[in-house]
Amino acid sequence: MSYTLSISPPSLSSPLLPCLRLALSLSGVSFSEQEGEVKHPTVTGVALTCPDGTVLGQATAILRFLSSLAPYANLYGPGDSFSSSQVDQWLSTAVSSLLVPLTALKSDAALAPRVKKDVEQFYGVLDAHLATRTYLACEYLTAADLLLGPLLTAAAEAAPPGDRVNLSRYHATVLAAFPSSDPSAAAAASTPAAAAAAAAKPGHSGLSLSGVPPPVTTQLFKRERTRIKELLSLPAGSAVTVSGWARTVRSADAGKLLFVELNDGSCAACVQCVVDKDAPGFDAAKPAKSGGTGASFTVKGTLVESQGKGQGLEVKASSVKLLGAVMGGNAEGTVPGGALYPLAKKGHSLEHLRENAHLRARTKLHAAAMRIRHAMAFATHKFFNDQGFLYIHTPIVTCADCEGAGEQFAVTTLLTTDPHKLDLKLPTVLAPEVPKEEEAAAGGEEGGEKKELSTKAKKKAAKKAASEAKRAAAAAATKMRPDPVPQPVGSVDYGLDFFQKRANLTVSGQLNVETHACALSDVYTFGPTFRAENSHTTRHLAEFWMIEPEVAFADLEMDIDLAEDFIKYCVKYALETCAEDLEFFETSEFGEKGLRDRLRNVSENPFKRLNYTEGIEILQQHVKDGKVFEESNIVWGMDLGSEHERYLCEVVFKKPVVLMNYPKEIKSFYMKLNEDNKTVAAADILVPKIGELVGGSAREERFDVLRERCIECGLEPDAVWWYLELRKFGTIKHAGFGLGFERLILFITGLENIKDVIPFPRAPGLAEF
Amino acid sequence: MSYTLSISPPSLSSPLLPCLRLALSLSGVSFSEQEGEVKHPTVTGVALTCPDGTVLGQATAILRFLSSLAPYANLYGPGDSFSSSQVDQWLSTAVSSLLVPLTALKSDAALAPRVKKDVEQFYGVLDAHLATRTYLACEYLTAADLLLGPLLTAAAEAAPPGDRVNLSRYHATVLAAFPSSDPSAAAAASTPAAAAAAAAKPGHSGLSLSGVPPPVTTQLFKRERTRIKELLSLPAGSAVTVSGWARTVRSADAGKLLFVELNDGSCAACVQCVVDKDAPGFDAAKPAKSGGTGASFTVKGTLVESQGKGQGLEVKASSVKLLGAVMGGNAEGTVPGGALYPLAKKGHSLEHLRENAHLRARTKLHAAAMRIRHAMAFATHKFFNDQGFLYIHTPIVTCADCEGAGEQFAVTTLLTTDPHKLDLKLPTVLAPEVPKEEEAAAGGEEGGEKKELSTKAKKKAAKKAASEAKRAAAAAATKMRPDPVPQPVGSVDYGLDFFQKRANLTVSGQLNVETHACALSDVYTFGPTFRAENSHTTRHLAEFWMIEPEVAFADLEMDIDLAEDFIKYCVKYALETCAEDLEFFETSEFGEKGLRDRLRNVSENPFKRLNYTEGIEILQQHVKDGKVFEESNIVWGMDLGSEHERYLCEVVFKKPVVLMNYPKEIKSFYMKLNEDNKTVAAADILVPKIGELVGGSAREERFDVLRERCIECGLEPDAVWWYLELRKFGTIKHAGFGLGFERLILFITGLENIKDVIPFPRAPGLAEF
Repeated sequence: MSYTLSISPPSLSSPLLPCLRLALSLSGVSFSEQEGEVKHPTVTGVALTCPDGTVLGQATAILRFLSSLAPYANLYGPGDSFSSSQVDQWLSTAVSSLLVPLTALKSDAALAPRVKKDVEQFYGVLDAHLATRTYLACEYLTAADLLLGPLLTAAAEAAPPGDRVNLSRYHATVLAAFPSSDPSAAAAASTPAAAAAAAAKPGHSGLSLSGVPPPVTTQLFKRERTRIKELLSLPAGSAVTVSGWARTVRSADAGKLLFVELNDGSCAACVQCVVDKDAPGFDAAKPAKSGGTGASFTVKGTLVESQGKGQGLEVKASSVKLLGAVMGGNAEGTVPGGALYPLAKKGHSLEHLRENAHLRARTKLHAAAMRIRHAMAFATHKFFNDQGFLYIHTPIVTCADCEGAGEQFAVTTLLTTDPHKLDLKLPTVLAPEVPKEEEAAAGGEEGGEKKELSTKAKKKAAKKAASEAKRAAAAAATKMRPDPVPQPVGSVDYGLDFFQKRANLTVSGQLNVETHACALSDVYTFGPTFRAENSHTTRHLAEFWMIEPEVAFADLEMDIDLAEDFIKYCVKYALETCAEDLEFFETSEFGEKGLRDRLRNVSENPFKRLNYTEGIEILQQHVKDGKVFEESNIVWGMDLGSEHERYLCEVVFKKPVVLMNYPKEIKSFYMKLNEDNKTVAAADILVPKIGELVGGSAREERFDVLRERCIECGLEPDAVWWYLELRKFGTIKHAGFGLGFERLILFITGLENIKDVIPFPRAPGLAEF
Repeated sequence: MSYTLSISPPSLSSPLLPCLRLALSLSGVSFSEQEGEVKHPTVTGVALTCPDGTVLGQATAILRFLSSLAPYANLYGPGDSFSSSQVDQWLSTAVSSLLVPLTALKSDAALAPRVKKDVEQFYGVLDAHLATRTYLACEYLTAADLLLGPLLTAAAEAAPPGDRVNLSRYHATVLAAFPSSDPSAAAAASTPAAAAAAAAKPGHSGLSLSGVPPPVTTQLFKRERTRIKELLSLPAGSAVTVSGWARTVRSADAGKLLFVELNDGSCAACVQCVVDKDAPGFDAAKPAKSGGTGASFTVKGTLVESQGKGQGLEVKASSVKLLGAVMGGNAEGTVPGGALYPLAKKGHSLEHLRENAHLRARTKLHAAAMRIRHAMAFATHKFFNDQGFLYIHTPIVTCADCEGAGEQFAVTTLLTTDPHKLDLKLPTVLAPEVPKEEEAAAGGEEGGEKKELSTKAKKKAAKKAASEAKRAAAAAATKMRPDPVPQPVGSVDYGLDFFQKRANLTVSGQLNVETHACALSDVYTFGPTFRAENSHTTRHLAEFWMIEPEVAFADLEMDIDLAEDFIKYCVKYALETCAEDLEFFETSEFGEKGLRDRLRNVSENPFKRLNYTEGIEILQQHVKDGKVFEESNIVWGMDLGSEHERYLCEVVFKKPVVLMNYPKEIKSFYMKLNEDNKTVAAADILVPKIGELVGGSAREERFDVLRERCIECGLEPDAVWWYLELRKFGTIKHAGFGLGFERLILFITGLENIKDVIPFPRAPGLAEF
């Protein structure tokens, strides 16, 4: 990709040339220069023509654009909005105070006295500003200096700067950053004031660019190929190298031409490469040799207007290189031919794609889903980072069981990986031989040497251990840290396991992230969570990703505000950055008609908020009016089914619905008890197509109430002692929510099956790959 | 926080007022207006005073700044750099072509003919541009329109727009977006051309703001408090509400004053709140009641210059509210008093903090580590997103064992969570009763009903099963998809487990992410990985996060280019956005002297790249010269120890070192075999303080060679059939690397123990919390 910098008429705007040249090279952009006018209706003077043919005018706009090309911390300072604003302000000032008057003066000499006066006034402001600063806006050279330096040189003709010491030093400092080979800069450096200043402060003449942070992201790593996404916006005539996998390879014109349709995953579109039989590599690329669909190629050539039916661009190949054929026929893959390539044909079922999860990213559908998934993950991090939240990696392996037993996967090293170790026996907790407290508490550290006991002895020991456990529990109640709960004799002895405790895969990062909310105030976690539920629905996975923000000093209302903002942000981000993929999902055979209208509706309208109790009343009324659900017996206290949730948002309110203040019996122990003593400050956000997308709550921050609720819910308070301690030491009200990431992707794409929006789904019996 | 918009002298720049007013309210910013000059040396005309006292001048800079306050997709279009550039260009054009000339005209009436001519020419350009567009730069209203609308109104005096239809329509459309209550806008709407156009197109008069995306992130969610980070940049005199946890609570002036030092985790600094005994809440806040250190408070008051020793600001409290006391004494927490608060004293050991991982985020050290960890995670996502990489969530639970047995955790539901289920027996694979192939392959699906066999019978069955397995393997070699490898009779029957296979926690996402690189080209994964190694070092965790990019069509050199760019980007990002926390790590008792110099050195200099073989030779030479290592017998083929790695980068080269092309025997099966047949195209990046930070390689893309290497490394090719298939169907050269995220945080913070840079470390015996 190459940019063209042009300027017209050359003499008038010359101070801009060295500025833009240097900015282009600092941005790592390759460019050429051209004199004479660019043909563009709204751009005059200086212009930058981009590789896609776009023309950008106005020096300040070009500088801004370059700073976005070389994204981080470069021409606009360290990246914070304050510094950027200062740079902007000085750019604008330079244009108003120097560029416009000097330009006007060139065409009307009568303006000279006025311009001289204004420029001198500006010199005064500048000299005072620079008394305590090396550069205009930041602690190093920015775009503002790049523009002002050459402008000051030009201004010296209209109004000599005189003996303004700071101004002269600054001018020399900035000019030293310009390559001495640049004719305009060299001319500039020879003005008396600058030269004098440079001589007086020799240190500055060697300053070069050390003050400028290099454009880091583009320094070393370069792609050899042009990605198809970028290629499609290049102007016809560009020389390109493109690599990818063939969606199709067709022979045409009696075997004299090959049409290779390549995709590289950078966008939904393919690029068609037309290969003439004389092009090197032609023979190897033929379907009979390459295997056709699925084979990988690198094509070099020229971008031309497409000759075929559609509009658009295609590549006229000067050479084609087969990188990898599609093999088949035998396991060694020595026989080329696409017959066994699982994606050889078109129109595969989604189930077939799931069975080929290692290859399905090569299909339009899965690639589009993955691009949207990426966009949503990035939008999530950007949203929370912009809001000042800290991302906390909560642990995956955990010994806290906050949602009740039976749904969690054990994580263990007790099961050998050696399949030939037969009749593996699990170590079990033995009755203590000596009834010393220390050994009982140690939980069988040396279990490897222990022997088995008879059933009778075991029962006796179990009884004894149970009474000891009771006593220990009573003792623990008056201590800060409980001793570990002793395990019954005869049960699996996790004291010998890797973590010396029964360890599980986490079902939620919430309890852990609360610890950091109770210290860092605004936090979130975004990681994998696990449920060992034997469910085979299109809405559940055994491994899924969850986003869980937690906000200190917040109540339920603020929590839902945040969730609503977040969902709308994601929807808007998708609409704006994933337009091509959303269009595909709206129009493909698996797509949802009106997808984007549904999303726009969500992003633009306030969610409906109402109490659970009101929700129940509405459903009851609709049942009375004749609506029939699978479960039509709607009673207060019930857990709403997906049919009820979707009915509320799809039929009753036609928008996302927030149900608040649920009966405590159907919600978790950590949710804040309302004053009615019957409901908790919990809220679910229900959205069309999905049902529940978000579950949130204010957390119970009162130590006594929380402890009581633990016991009510059958949870041993000692098992979560550290969680309770947050309420002992400077407790605060706080609130948070959990959003299932895959459900968000279903919601955005309109896809129906959760297995289609995650790279490698995990479910009962499903962990191939 | 409130902003102040001022303008001076009012009459001259009035077109800017409605523009900036509307921009401020669209940005969700509360502001007041002020007439008269702002006292600022470099700002004249319009000015925006921020809550921290900063003054920003120039309308375009203010508009830019507002667009960064309301970050996503608002005043500057949908957020892509093309649209932003267009907005910039039109803003700049509006300033040069209208604002500057009109301002000049006000002070010099003699310019009238010239200004009229120039403005009319600009009208012509504009009218042509608007022939096919509703708005200037995007498909909806942007900052450019907000500025140009009122400017056109002002320009009409100097040069009547005449019958330019598009221009008139546009002018009316834009003015309709301004509130009719705005006096300047109302005046504007009454100009003849605009009024006529509005009348002719009634639809536009009701246009309002529907075309403008609202500033999503700040729409609903508002904090009630001011965060300390923001508070400290407010001007003295501001009224503030601050919440947080007390680092200290001190009585002074014979009990008439309280000094409450609050921190809320938003930054390292605390804010001191001075509470007079007459302030409501004074009594409850006293250490004897609140417990002092660790208690949580909300303080309302006024920001004042600190009276104490240090400079800076403090809060003069008008009221203080104790949110949560520090309790102690008994488990019910009914007795206040900080004696049992684990962080009550200062100067705790790092080990003590680890034992209180649920509270340690309230310490300066851990909070700083977590803020840097957050910054590095965000920098990672930003770097790869900016480079066009897609984030792929590779699975955590996996059945592929690519690193060899023994290091992996099993994930299972075979172990009941009920501790009272005693003598739990694992199901084992039984010998098939009927030797039908189907049942053998099914792997014991109905094991629940099976009985145990005698040892003799088992042996016989095992032998039979083994021979069957051999036969099946031979058959599989000619099939595309291998049958599952049958498990020996008597071994644990994972056919009855949740995933119907032995499932493990992943040790790396690489094999999985390669599937998506071989389709989407540029991908990365960033997630938790697990090693069940019984290591107790300061460099290893059982659960840690890894960043693993994978690049299609890339070789080792490109791979290392990417890694070097990425590391430098992260270092630079930390230096620029975490300055306060890095200073703490450089100066604290656990800190590293010269930390930031070390980081700057890394970010500014190229890494040293050399072959493993050269590295060995250098080490051998140094041993010959007298250097003594723990392992001084340096031979080609050895795996370098951490002492060797650190010596190379800390002593020999004094910078990060890239060692390339390692002996194949000490590297993994998937690394590309070099032509010498002895080394593989692998590289490690070694950095001072840490040793190995990155391990990367080109991947073996040749099917035959990879299959051979599998077998050489003792890996059953069938176990990774899907990985091999990537080499059968359009194989490509590709490369990637893995970077241990916690090691990066150690590297950036200078901390010594990996357990201090992750919220909840996991290691042998360590999974409390």
